[in-house]
Amino acid sequence: MITVPIIELRSDTFTRPTPDMLAAMATAPLGDDVYGEDPTVRLLEEKASDAMGKPAACLMPSGTMANLAALTAHAPRGSRVLAGRDSDIYVYEAHGVSVCSGVALDPIAVDDLGRPRLADLAAALPEDWDDPQFSLPAVVCVENTANRAGGIPLGPPDLVDIAEFARDHRMAVHMDGARIFNAAVALRVPARELARYADSVQFCLSKGLSAPIGSVVAGQAGFINRVRRVRKMLGGGMRQAGVIAAAGIIALDTMVDRLAEDHAHARLLAEGLDQIDGISADPARVRTNIVMCKVDEPGPPHATLIALAAERGVRLAELGKGQLRAVTHREITRDDIDRAVHIIGAVVRDWRKEQAA
Amino acid sequence: MITVPIIELRSDTFTRPTPDMLAAMATAPLGDDVYGEDPTVRLLEEKASDAMGKPAACLMPSGTMANLAALTAHAPRGSRVLAGRDSDIYVYEAHGVSVCSGVALDPIAVDDLGRPRLADLAAALPEDWDDPQFSLPAVVCVENTANRAGGIPLGPPDLVDIAEFARDHRMAVHMDGARIFNAAVALRVPARELARYADSVQFCLSKGLSAPIGSVVAGQAGFINRVRRVRKMLGGGMRQAGVIAAAGIIALDTMVDRLAEDHAHARLLAEGLDQIDGISADPARVRTNIVMCKVDEPGPPHATLIALAAERGVRLAELGKGQLRAVTHREITRDDIDRAVHIIGAVVRDWRKEQAA
Amino acid sequence: MITVPIIELRSDTFTRPTPDMLAAMATAPLGDDVYGEDPTVRLLEEKASDAMGKPAACLMPSGTMANLAALTAHAPRGSRVLAGRDSDIYVYEAHGVSVCSGVALDPIAVDDLGRPRLADLAAALPEDWDDPQFSLPAVVCVENTANRAGGIPLGPPDLVDIAEFARDHRMAVHMDGARIFNAAVALRVPARELARYADSVQFCLSKGLSAPIGSVVAGQAGFINRVRRVRKMLGGGMRQAGVIAAAGIIALDTMVDRLAEDHAHARLLAEGLDQIDGISADPARVRTNIVMCKVDEPGPPHATLIALAAERGVRLAELGKGQLRAVTHREITRDDIDRAVHIIGAVVRDWRKEQAA
Amino acid sequence: MITVPIIELRSDTFTRPTPDMLAAMATAPLGDDVYGEDPTVRLLEEKASDAMGKPAACLMPSGTMANLAALTAHAPRGSRVLAGRDSDIYVYEAHGVSVCSGVALDPIAVDDLGRPRLADLAAALPEDWDDPQFSLPAVVCVENTANRAGGIPLGPPDLVDIAEFARDHRMAVHMDGARIFNAAVALRVPARELARYADSVQFCLSKGLSAPIGSVVAGQAGFINRVRRVRKMLGGGMRQAGVIAAAGIIALDTMVDRLAEDHAHARLLAEGLDQIDGISADPARVRTNIVMCKVDEPGPPHATLIALAAERGVRLAELGKGQLRAVTHREITRDDIDRAVHIIGAVVRDWRKEQAA
Repeated sequence: MITVPIIELRSDTFTRPTPDMLAAMATAPLGDDVYGEDPTVRLLEEKASDAMGKPAACLMPSGTMANLAALTAHAPRGSRVLAGRDSDIYVYEAHGVSVCSGVALDPIAVDDLGRPRLADLAAALPEDWDDPQFSLPAVVCVENTANRAGGIPLGPPDLVDIAEFARDHRMAVHMDGARIFNAAVALRVPARELARYADSVQFCLSKGLSAPIGSVVAGQAGFINRVRRVRKMLGGGMRQAGVIAAAGIIALDTMVDRLAEDHAHARLLAEGLDQIDGISADPARVRTNIVMCKVDEPGPPHATLIALAAERGVRLAELGKGQLRAVTHREITRDDIDRAVHIIGAVVRDWRKEQAA
Repeated sequence: MITVPIIELRSDTFTRPTPDMLAAMATAPLGDDVYGEDPTVRLLEEKASDAMGKPAACLMPSGTMANLAALTAHAPRGSRVLAGRDSDIYVYEAHGVSVCSGVALDPIAVDDLGRPRLADLAAALPEDWDDPQFSLPAVVCVENTANRAGGIPLGPPDLVDIAEFARDHRMAVHMDGARIFNAAVALRVPARELARYADSVQFCLSKGLSAPIGSVVAGQAGFINRVRRVRKMLGGGMRQAGVIAAAGIIALDTMVDRLAEDHAHARLLAEGLDQIDGISADPARVRTNIVMCKVDEPGPPHATLIALAAERGVRLAELGKGQLRAVTHREITRDDIDRAVHIIGAVVRDWRKEQAA
Repeated sequence: MITVPIIELRSDTFTRPTPDMLAAMATAPLGDDVYGEDPTVRLLEEKASDAMGKPAACLMPSGTMANLAALTAHAPRGSRVLAGRDSDIYVYEAHGVSVCSGVALDPIAVDDLGRPRLADLAAALPEDWDDPQFSLPAVVCVENTANRAGGIPLGPPDLVDIAEFARDHRMAVHMDGARIFNAAVALRVPARELARYADSVQFCLSKGLSAPIGSVVAGQAGFINRVRRVRKMLGGGMRQAGVIAAAGIIALDTMVDRLAEDHAHARLLAEGLDQIDGISADPARVRTNIVMCKVDEPGPPHATLIALAAERGVRLAELGKGQLRAVTHREITRDDIDRAVHIIGAVVRDWRKEQAA
Repeated sequence: MITVPIIELRSDTFTRPTPDMLAAMATAPLGDDVYGEDPTVRLLEEKASDAMGKPAACLMPSGTMANLAALTAHAPRGSRVLAGRDSDIYVYEAHGVSVCSGVALDPIAVDDLGRPRLADLAAALPEDWDDPQFSLPAVVCVENTANRAGGIPLGPPDLVDIAEFARDHRMAVHMDGARIFNAAVALRVPARELARYADSVQFCLSKGLSAPIGSVVAGQAGFINRVRRVRKMLGGGMRQAGVIAAAGIIALDTMVDRLAEDHAHARLLAEGLDQIDGISADPARVRTNIVMCKVDEPGPPHATLIALAAERGVRLAELGKGQLRAVTHREITRDDIDRAVHIIGAVVRDWRKEQAA
């Protein structure tokens, strides 16, 4: 639970539902979605497919299942999915697609936008597609925004080459668009203009959009039918799922535009952190709501800084090894940014003093 | 969506949340449960583990995932799970445990209580446990209440032999207790007295207990840790899952005892249906909230009867081939029972008249 | 190693290669079959596809892999294979297709010929093919000869209904023809007349045909390409596999017709056993090289009889629970039959005497 | 089939059995190895376990299955295997361990010896072993010799750090020792001195050792029992496998020491190739029987050179993209080396002339 004095910067997944969402959850018409009879879920799925510019969409309990079901629906047993080595799909989703679906994840080196590098994608093609010693690649994943690259939004020029490469080699493109609306707002384009470079896209209602639970996969109708089949098998079919969808509808209708504010806050945070003696951030790389920074030598180890900042009410995360991540969201105010910078600065200074003593 | 004139007897999964549940969902303290920080989820899990008499419990988005994760946590890759041929785990869950976990489901003939027959369990043991041509059995499943047997509650005398058999052969017992509280109420024992014959148990918050979403798995602490790991991989980790858990807490606290009313209604429904000329039910077998019945010759085919009754506002389900199922629940009143009997009787009579004409 | 005084009736898998086979193995032209360059393997595959009346064929290290690869090539991830509950695929192959391929094996009750019963196949169809809670059936298996039914050969009249049923429901038929040549010889038809009722068939070179190692899968060219891909993944690609194939060619060319002798021996064995006071066999059911029998009360438990007979040089097997199996083959002579009957009779008599004492 | 004028340098897998092997195959005592009764297989397994210094060993139809079964026996469902990105396990084995065993392969950058780099192994450890979003690493693979590094033999100093790293993190070490005897001969140590740095090791009888078929996995007794179970499930159990094992025994007894000759030939080949104007080899890196080289600009594309050389009787392989590989073995003589150098030189010169014309 986030209590008043806490400045929660570990992730935008901590956003709690708004009063409007809670009200909508309490009044939404409901049915049994496992029977396909929940009108609120249907409405959300229509809105989501419209937002993504795809013919169909399917509500999921999480982004992890959204990615797992989408990749399973695309990739035959025994095939390979090419995903950025730094991508959430490769790093944070327990390799579920290998365990559940008999599909190999092949990690591809990423460029500074967090995209799989074209040369490395090409190197991952089999020398001979007919030779059974090679698992055949079936899907290329892109992440938008690219989380571990620092929330980089990928626009049409960043996506077109990958889409073309995939098409040339009869592979599908799946976009892990957990934060696709952050990308769209940053680039000032509709999300569907980004989704068009992918055969399927998933996005999270539960991150910056502030809904409590849920993600959506969008794509062609036949693909979504396969996704629904996988969802049932995994146990992602939920009964009166309209209670979740109701919040998701509010999220889609009202929470997208305000992401710009989170982006402005993130930029301010990066500038503030970078001015602390002992912290390096790179404000120019902050394009959405994610700030990456590092402690300079001499300074506290990251785990120490995280612990000390937490004691004073600022929660940060270590992301991978060697980087700190702060994520802005609806529950972070302009004041919180200033306070966070102040507190982190004090933590570093105090640590140095103590070390010097 | 259930609108006013509909009498929804297809399943108790159609129950919508109560006003108390909706209020609780709107006011529950929330956190990110993927980080283990949602206090409402924790409270639900404590209440659930207490209700089941097990040390630990874990919230799930569905009963399907609850069973899948529990069986995966019990059964090593390559092993076998023995489950009733008529059980929901064998029939309605897409064989997910074979697909996701490399575990074979071996269907065992059931007795008239819906339990796997001991002789058939014994016959499923390998002739030689060391011979690698045999997949080794690791789990026995029991379903309580047994759905396709007509909602039969299994009490301690019904369970003790299976538990002993499993222990003798070093197998775990998993109870699919989707409707364990119906069993407990019918047998006038606490649910934990039933759960004690199993190493793990899952129950649904979303059936008779009327919560919109969710099931819980309970068991030993180490087992639940493995279940949590599987849940994450499957994509069952949800962010502010407290919104669901809040309804689940109300369900556990307030909805168990009232199941007796559903059972009384079911008995009345069976009696009413059995008195219709052209329908056979067996009121003496109705022990909980499930009524099985058949149309006698000459009479409408089941699909026809279902369609005609639906036109007049009564929704029934075909279960398996050759049986109709009606399930009572919180949204079915005593009046609904009378009306349903009246309407179904009229449907059968009208069909016969039309055929005779 | 079979030494002189042993009468090995446990299985025809114990047959050792003939001198002709050993000579062929020593002189066959060889290449690297993983590169598709072993001429002897190619020749065997041509002969095998011709014998089965199928366009293509693929050598395998075992019948288990032949079945596993064939079912994997037919059945999509998440689908179901319908196989006789008593079939070798269900009982003796470690459920590999569930573990390796995410495919459920659904055991179907068999008739007295060992065929899946049509009514039970029909009952295994999903109530609704579009409902994702049901795993969809993709393949029906038949076993020819049916091992645990006692080596029953299935002829065209026995197969046509299953083939039609499968076609009507868009399922493939896979024939586990481990002993298809025994069936063909017993029925006096070419094996291809039996194989035509199946989309794919596997047969063993290593059973009655006496080759040391190997099975072959035959089917359409595209199917066999998929089988080769699966074979490589499983590790069934072998280098100078011509050494095995050379023996297989001799087996196909010279060992089929002599199976009639094994069948005659089996009939004699059954007649002899049935005349022993204390043993029941059913000579009329002996159609190929398998004899099933039971010990009557009072008599030694099967394990005891097996142990006592083994001490005197006769090796029998327990098959399933409650039946003894004896299998005739090239290394069993007419004299061996007489001796085996004599020895088993003596074992039963001596046991009774000892019990009476 | 290798006919007289062909110089087969694509792989040592092309080696055909020696007359001694063929004679041994024709006279070996045989039994049914699926029942564990083939004395020749047992003898081979004893010799192999002795050679590897491990308590137990198991014959396999291929190195692919040997690796697949070993990794499956080590790695629980859902865990990760860390293998060199260039390793045969990662590149050439169809990701079978993900498909069949639900285990992720995580490719690790390799150093110039072809070993997974320690820093990259460390980077592949999960940030938090208890966090279920991370698949847990269970095995580290090493390849000896390292094929795509050019047949580099890894000695104790090369292996000790990886072994220690694995032990520190409770991971097993599996050595893909397909060519471990080449390494042992090159380093003048017994193979068991290399195997001791691994919990399990597989080696091929069918490469430089010239047996027609087969690999062996060696390790602890309990591990080998699990390997046997997996082997049966995959269909790697073979009947009179003694015919294969007999050749394997000759291979182990007589073919190891002569690998030194292949190594000398490989060095001569590299020196010869490097002196061709238009080819770069690096004789100093040739440590065993593998020669890597490249065509310099201007020169024929690799596919062209391979085709032109093949027309003149010299067979080479492209390995990965951008490198040519030539492998020496028992069927390559000193004369063949000279002829191959001569022919390849002529191919390059002729191509240049033609281009210039």
